[in-house]
Amino acid sequence: MEIPDSARELLESAALAHLVTINPDGSPQVSVVWVGVDGDEIVAGHVPHNRKVQNIRRDGRVTLSIETRRQNEMGLTEYLVVKGTARITEGGAVELLRELAKTYQGPDADFLPADNLPGGYITHIRVDKISGVGPWA
Amino acid sequence: MEIPDSARELLESAALAHLVTINPDGSPQVSVVWVGVDGDEIVAGHVPHNRKVQNIRRDGRVTLSIETRRQNEMGLTEYLVVKGTARITEGGAVELLRELAKTYQGPDADFLPADNLPGGYITHIRVDKISGVGPWA
Repeated sequence: MEIPDSARELLESAALAHLVTINPDGSPQVSVVWVGVDGDEIVAGHVPHNRKVQNIRRDGRVTLSIETRRQNEMGLTEYLVVKGTARITEGGAVELLRELAKTYQGPDADFLPADNLPGGYITHIRVDKISGVGPWA
Repeated sequence: MEIPDSARELLESAALAHLVTINPDGSPQVSVVWVGVDGDEIVAGHVPHNRKVQNIRRDGRVTLSIETRRQNEMGLTEYLVVKGTARITEGGAVELLRELAKTYQGPDADFLPADNLPGGYITHIRVDKISGVGPWA
């Protein structure tokens, strides 16, 4: 599905994403990652071939959640939950992470400055369903 | 396992928990909740018999993640991941949520003020493994 503008704004901000993948034994694996938006896909970069990458290659079902700094009328913090289908591509992770660092760390970020890094992996998430608490729910 | 002091401090703070349970089809279900600590268990309250409660009753494997506001030497935000085993008890949710509201909303919070609310459900999470980025990892 297309990403609604309200959700896109949060996905493109410096708010962190809690990315859930599924372990081989069916239990959830979570890490907190930087994300960006590329067209109608959410993207994240990984330099090593870590558990997340291995999990997504085996089972593309992912969920991510992001807190806002806004509260609703009950005083509950608004948050976005995205249920999606992910795929992994090889290469380009360092460039993506350096780009995302400008959002997450600031325009002058010097993230992963070494020039001999491996290409890494990019997770591309197609959005299947949006929920949570906020204008997108 | 016992909860390390560094993790306990975060679990008892106003930082929100992203709680993952497992849907019947094996996909992850996520919501952002208030949590507290009771002895060596993490607790959360739910007034309705929602999806989380139903999922935990079927499969007690849960994971929760919490962001700090601290960054490590690479400029990455520290966060806690708890892998645990959860069980549900009935009743006491409103009292727990009113108590947690003092932490999450402030000492004068007037959360769920009605006096005719159902007892709800409490999730109790026994900690099996702690990871993430921070002094607990």
